[in-house]
Amino acid sequence: MATGKDFSSDTAAPAHPRILEALIAANEGNAPSYGDDRWTARLKECMSELFGREVWTFPVLTGTAANAIALATITPPYGAVLCHEAAHILVDECGGAELLSGGARLYPLAGAGGRIDPAPVEALCARLVANGFHNHQPAALSLTQGTESGTIYAIEDLKRLIAPARARGMRIHMDGARLANAVARLGCSPAATTADAGVDVLSFGATKNGATGAEAVVFFNGALAERAIFLQKRAGHVPSKMRFLSAQLLAMLDAGLWLESARAANDMARRLADGLAEIGLAPHWSVEINEVFLTLSRGAAGRLRAAGFQFLSWGPEGETGVGLYRFVTSYATEARDVDQLLGALRSASPLE
Amino acid sequence: MATGKDFSSDTAAPAHPRILEALIAANEGNAPSYGDDRWTARLKECMSELFGREVWTFPVLTGTAANAIALATITPPYGAVLCHEAAHILVDECGGAELLSGGARLYPLAGAGGRIDPAPVEALCARLVANGFHNHQPAALSLTQGTESGTIYAIEDLKRLIAPARARGMRIHMDGARLANAVARLGCSPAATTADAGVDVLSFGATKNGATGAEAVVFFNGALAERAIFLQKRAGHVPSKMRFLSAQLLAMLDAGLWLESARAANDMARRLADGLAEIGLAPHWSVEINEVFLTLSRGAAGRLRAAGFQFLSWGPEGETGVGLYRFVTSYATEARDVDQLLGALRSASPLE
Amino acid sequence: MATGKDFSSDTAAPAHPRILEALIAANEGNAPSYGDDRWTARLKECMSELFGREVWTFPVLTGTAANAIALATITPPYGAVLCHEAAHILVDECGGAELLSGGARLYPLAGAGGRIDPAPVEALCARLVANGFHNHQPAALSLTQGTESGTIYAIEDLKRLIAPARARGMRIHMDGARLANAVARLGCSPAATTADAGVDVLSFGATKNGATGAEAVVFFNGALAERAIFLQKRAGHVPSKMRFLSAQLLAMLDAGLWLESARAANDMARRLADGLAEIGLAPHWSVEINEVFLTLSRGAAGRLRAAGFQFLSWGPEGETGVGLYRFVTSYATEARDVDQLLGALRSASPLE
Amino acid sequence: MATGKDFSSDTAAPAHPRILEALIAANEGNAPSYGDDRWTARLKECMSELFGREVWTFPVLTGTAANAIALATITPPYGAVLCHEAAHILVDECGGAELLSGGARLYPLAGAGGRIDPAPVEALCARLVANGFHNHQPAALSLTQGTESGTIYAIEDLKRLIAPARARGMRIHMDGARLANAVARLGCSPAATTADAGVDVLSFGATKNGATGAEAVVFFNGALAERAIFLQKRAGHVPSKMRFLSAQLLAMLDAGLWLESARAANDMARRLADGLAEIGLAPHWSVEINEVFLTLSRGAAGRLRAAGFQFLSWGPEGETGVGLYRFVTSYATEARDVDQLLGALRSASPLE
Repeated sequence: MATGKDFSSDTAAPAHPRILEALIAANEGNAPSYGDDRWTARLKECMSELFGREVWTFPVLTGTAANAIALATITPPYGAVLCHEAAHILVDECGGAELLSGGARLYPLAGAGGRIDPAPVEALCARLVANGFHNHQPAALSLTQGTESGTIYAIEDLKRLIAPARARGMRIHMDGARLANAVARLGCSPAATTADAGVDVLSFGATKNGATGAEAVVFFNGALAERAIFLQKRAGHVPSKMRFLSAQLLAMLDAGLWLESARAANDMARRLADGLAEIGLAPHWSVEINEVFLTLSRGAAGRLRAAGFQFLSWGPEGETGVGLYRFVTSYATEARDVDQLLGALRSASPLE
Repeated sequence: MATGKDFSSDTAAPAHPRILEALIAANEGNAPSYGDDRWTARLKECMSELFGREVWTFPVLTGTAANAIALATITPPYGAVLCHEAAHILVDECGGAELLSGGARLYPLAGAGGRIDPAPVEALCARLVANGFHNHQPAALSLTQGTESGTIYAIEDLKRLIAPARARGMRIHMDGARLANAVARLGCSPAATTADAGVDVLSFGATKNGATGAEAVVFFNGALAERAIFLQKRAGHVPSKMRFLSAQLLAMLDAGLWLESARAANDMARRLADGLAEIGLAPHWSVEINEVFLTLSRGAAGRLRAAGFQFLSWGPEGETGVGLYRFVTSYATEARDVDQLLGALRSASPLE
Repeated sequence: MATGKDFSSDTAAPAHPRILEALIAANEGNAPSYGDDRWTARLKECMSELFGREVWTFPVLTGTAANAIALATITPPYGAVLCHEAAHILVDECGGAELLSGGARLYPLAGAGGRIDPAPVEALCARLVANGFHNHQPAALSLTQGTESGTIYAIEDLKRLIAPARARGMRIHMDGARLANAVARLGCSPAATTADAGVDVLSFGATKNGATGAEAVVFFNGALAERAIFLQKRAGHVPSKMRFLSAQLLAMLDAGLWLESARAANDMARRLADGLAEIGLAPHWSVEINEVFLTLSRGAAGRLRAAGFQFLSWGPEGETGVGLYRFVTSYATEARDVDQLLGALRSASPLE
Repeated sequence: MATGKDFSSDTAAPAHPRILEALIAANEGNAPSYGDDRWTARLKECMSELFGREVWTFPVLTGTAANAIALATITPPYGAVLCHEAAHILVDECGGAELLSGGARLYPLAGAGGRIDPAPVEALCARLVANGFHNHQPAALSLTQGTESGTIYAIEDLKRLIAPARARGMRIHMDGARLANAVARLGCSPAATTADAGVDVLSFGATKNGATGAEAVVFFNGALAERAIFLQKRAGHVPSKMRFLSAQLLAMLDAGLWLESARAANDMARRLADGLAEIGLAPHWSVEINEVFLTLSRGAAGRLRAAGFQFLSWGPEGETGVGLYRFVTSYATEARDVDQLLGALRSASPLE
C-alpha cells in the first residue's frame, strides 16, 4: 500500500487489510441487533484489559459522534467546556457538542503547539464562577492527545492541567482521535495517558488509524456511562448492525495493530522531519506524531500542488504570502512517498 | 446463506456478499475525505437515474440518522410532524427527530395495518392551526413505506394522504427503511411511490436489505437539501471515509441488487404466510412485504422460543395471555428456515 | 370590579388592586438586581411558612416558564413526561418543556374530567421501559391541580397516581396555575395537595388569580433546585428587576389574598352551575373550581356571542353542530355578571 | 427620587412614576389575553411611527429574552453570530441565544471601547466560509448600541460594519438595551442608528430606562417576524396579561419619556466624568452614555465600598492590585448622588 502524493489527511487513507478481514469474518450468519452481539460484548472486555480496569465502551462511526456523546455525558446544558482554540470539537464539528449537550458552550484557550496552557484555564474558570448564573459554569476540560498540531502532551503536562480542573469538580474528556499515535510516541501504557492521568471519558480513535470508520467512547467511570446509550441512540449513532463497528475495533486491538499502525504513521512523519532538517527546513511545531506543519510561500505551495501533492492550508495565509501548511502521514504512507515529497520540497524553493 | 431460526429482524442478517465485495473494491488507495470522493459523487448520479430526475443524496450509517436529518430540513422547531402511532421515528428512535429539529413534536395518528387514515390528519391539522402559536404548527407528514406492520400503501392511498397535506404547505417525508420491499411488491418505479406521489425527502434504506450499515437521505427538492449537510455534520453523521457508505449504496443499486434482495425477503414472508394458511392460521395484518404478525398464546410463544426460534413480542400481551408476535424474513432467509418455523408452529398449538 | 360579559379566561381579568398597591410599594429606591433583593428573599421565607417546610422559590412571569423550568429540572433530554392529554404543557405551551429540557417528550394520557387514570400510567411506563434505549424513559409525571376541565384531584387520587410513579424513580411536577382554586375547594393545607402528596416541584400560579403576571417555581427538594437558576437564566426568565415579580407573589400570600381571590372565583362558578341546574342544564364536567363547561348548539353559542358574551370553544364542534364551550370566572367576576349570563342562556335555547 | 450611593446598575433603579401610572391605567376591566389586547396593538402603531416605517413588535420581560428571540429568527442552528467579546449575549445571558436558536454559536470579536473592529469580522467570516460545513456559517452580526463599555457607535461606524456583513447575506441584530441612551447622545432619529443603518431586528430596551421590566423585539422586516411569536411562546415569553408589558412600552414612547429618561441618565454620567477630570482622573473609556469605567486600586475600591458605595468590578483585578470598576447612572440618579461619589473619590486616593 502507498499513499502516493496525498498528504491531505490520515482520513484519506484506505482501510487496513486486517480491518477488511475482520469485517468479512464478522459477517457470519445472523447476530443480535443494536449492540447485543458478541463482538460488542467482547469489545468491552478487550478495552478493559487494555486499560487495566473495567471500562464501558460505545462504538460509533465518527469522531464527532464520539466527542459529542462523551461531552454530553459530563456537562449540563449550561456547562462550559474548555478546549484548545484549535480543538477539533471547536473548529471542525459544526457544533456537535453543543447539539448533543443541549447548549454547553466551548471556550477556546490558547497555547503553543496545540497544547493548552494551564494559567488561562484557571483564570477563565475563576471568571465564569464569579459571574455565577449569568453565564456557563465550568463543567468539562477537553484535551486532545495527540494534538491537532502534531504534538503530544507529556503525562506530567496532562496532570498539571487535569488536577486543578478536577479539584473544581470538572470532568475530563480526551479526544483521542490520534491516541494511538500519542501512546506509540510516549511508549507508555494506554492507561498512563488517560485514566491514570485523570481522564473520565475518552474518544478512542480508529478511523485515522486504519478502520473504514469506527471509534469508541470509552468511560473509565461507570456512573457517567449510564446516560451514554440514550444520547448515542437519539443522535442516530446506535447502528442496528453494530457488529461491523465493534469488529473493526477488536481488530485494531488484536495483536497490537493499533500501535503498529500508529508507529508506522509516526515513523513516516519522522522521516519527513529528518529529511526537512537536511534541506534546512524546520517544521513549525515539533513533530511528535504523524503530522508535519511547514511554513511555505504561496508560490511554493502552488508549485507542490501543481506537481500533484495534496496537503491542507492551516489557517489564513499571512500578508506576506507565507502560510502554514499541514502534511499528514498514515499507516499506509511509504518511505518512497515521503522521499518523493522531500525531493519536491527540495526543488520547490519553499520560501520563495 | 441462511438465517436458521432467527426471525427477530432483517437487521440481524449479515451483509450481502456483494456488499462486502464493494467495500473491498472501494479500498483502493487514498481518497478525498468527508464525501469529496468519487463513490459519493457517483451515488448522486445513480440515484438520479433511479428516480428519473435530479436528486440530492446524503449517505449516513443509520435509519435514525436519515430520518432525523430528513425531518429537520422540513420542520421548524415549533413544527408538528404527523406520523403513524407505530412509526419508527416515534417509538424506536429515542427522540432523534426532536433532537435534530430542535424541538419539533411528533403527533401519532391511528390507522389499521400501520397505515395512517386520512381523516384524522385533517382533524389534527385543523385543531393545531386553530390554536395558533399556542402549539406546534403542521409542518411535515411522515409516511413509512412499507409500514411497520408489514403492509404497504397503495400509490393512490399515498396521494390521498399527501395531496391535502401539501395543500396546507406541509412537506412530506417517507421513511423508506423497507422501501425496496415495497417497490418490489408494488412492481412500480421507485419514483412512482416517492417523488411522483409528492414526497419531498426520502430515507432510502439499505441496512435491512443487506448493507453492513448504510442509508441515504434523498431529496427530490434541491432547495430543501441545502441545509442537510450542516445538520448531518453537527449530528456527527459525515464520516471522514464516506466512500465506505457510498460504495455500499452503489452496490445496492448495481444490477438491481436492492430489488433482488427485497424480493427474496418478501418471497420468504409469502412462503410463511402461505404455510400458515395451510395450518389454518391467519396473520394479524396482510403480509405484503417481509414481516408476518401472528397472534399466539403465551405458551406457544414460549414453546417456540424454547425450541430456539427468535422473534419479537409486538405490543403488550393481552390479559388472556394471547399476544401479537412479529416474524421478519430477510434476503438471507432460506426456504428451509421458513419450513422449519412452519413445522414448529404446526406442532406448537399456537393458541393454547 | 366586574368582568361583564367576558367569561373567556381568568387571564383576561385585571390585576387585583392589592397587587398594584404592592407594585407601588416595591418601587422604593434602588434595589439589587436579578433576585438579590429583599422581596425575593422574603418570598422564600413566606412560601416555606406556607408549605410548612423549607422550599426554594424562583419567580417567573408566565406559567409556561414555570412549567418548563420545573420539568427541565426533573427530566433528562431522553425522559418521558407523562401528562393528561388536555394538559396545558401539552396543548398550550408550544413545546416549552421540550425546549428547556432539551428534548424530553410529553406522553398524553386519557382520563375523564381532566384527571389522569392510574392504569394507563403503569401500562405506558412498562412499555417504555421494555423498549429500553430505543425510546424515552419514564422520568416525570405532571399533574394539573385544579385541572384544565375545572375539576380537582382528591388527595387520595393524587397519592394513587404518585406513589407508583415515585416507586419507579419518577419525579412529580404539579402545574398549579389554579392551585389556589383547588386548595380553596379542598379546604386542605397547601402542603396536603402538594409536598405531602409526593410532589417534587410545583408551578405556583398567581396570574390567573389576580397578579399582573407572576408565578413561582417552588421546589420541595433542595437538590433538584440547584439547576433551576441556570435554566431560568438561559431561558431569559431572570428579570433584572425581579422585585416586581416577588412583590406580587408576596402580596398574594399576604393575609391570604390568594385563597380569598380563588374562593371568589370558585363561588361565581358555583353560582353559575347552580343557576344552570335551575334551567335544567348540566355542566359537562363537575364544577369544582372556577370553570364551567357547557354543551351548546352552534346556534346557541352564536346567539350568546352576538349578545356580547365571550367564552371559548373547547375542542372541535361535533358533526351534529353541538359543541363544548368553556366559561371561566375570576376573582373579579361579580354575581350580576353571572346572572346576566344565566339570563342569556335561559333565553338562548342552548341546544337548538 | 434618588439612587443614593448605588451605582451598581441602571437595573437597580426603581420604575419611573409614569410607568406605574401606566400600569394602573391599563388595569381597567377585562382585556383579551396573550397579546390580543389594544395596548399591544397600539404598540405596533407607535413603534412604527417612531421608526418611520411599519415595524413588528413583540413585548417581552427581559433583555435576554429579546436578544434570544431576535437572534433565533435570523440564524439557523449551525449559524455563527458575531458579537463583541464583551457583548451581553455572550457573557451575561447564560446561553440564551444558543438555547433558542437551537445551537447557533457566538463568536467573540475584540475591539476597543466595546466596539467591534471591522477587520476581524471579515477575517473570521472568510475562515468560517472556507471551512464549509465543518463549522458554523456566518449568519448574524450582533451590535450593541450603546455598548457595554459606555460608548456608542457613530452611525458611520455602524454602516462600515453592517454593509459587508449584509453583502455576505448576514442579518443584523442590535442589542438596544441602552438604545435610548445612544439615541439621546447621537441626537439622531431612532431610525438613523437602526433600520436606516441596516439593522434587521432590534432589542428595544426599556427596563434599564425606567420600566419595571419590559423590552420589545422590533423587526424592520416583516418576513423575519413571522417566526417570532412561535419562538417567543415556546420560550415562555408570551404573558397572558401582555397588556402590562405593552402599557409600559407605550408609556415610554409617550411624550418622549424614553429619551427624557436616557438624557437624565447620560447627564449624570457626564457630570461624573466632568468631576473626575477636575480631580485629575480619566475614565478608562470615553463616557458617551450612562456608564463610567474607572481604574482604581483595590484599596480605593474597598474604601469606597466601606463608605457604602455600590459599583461592579469589571474584569479581573490585575496583578498590581489595580482594577477596572463600573459606575452606572440611571434616570433616577440625582446630582447630589454624583457629587457625593465625587467627594468620596476625591478623598479615596483612587490609585493607592
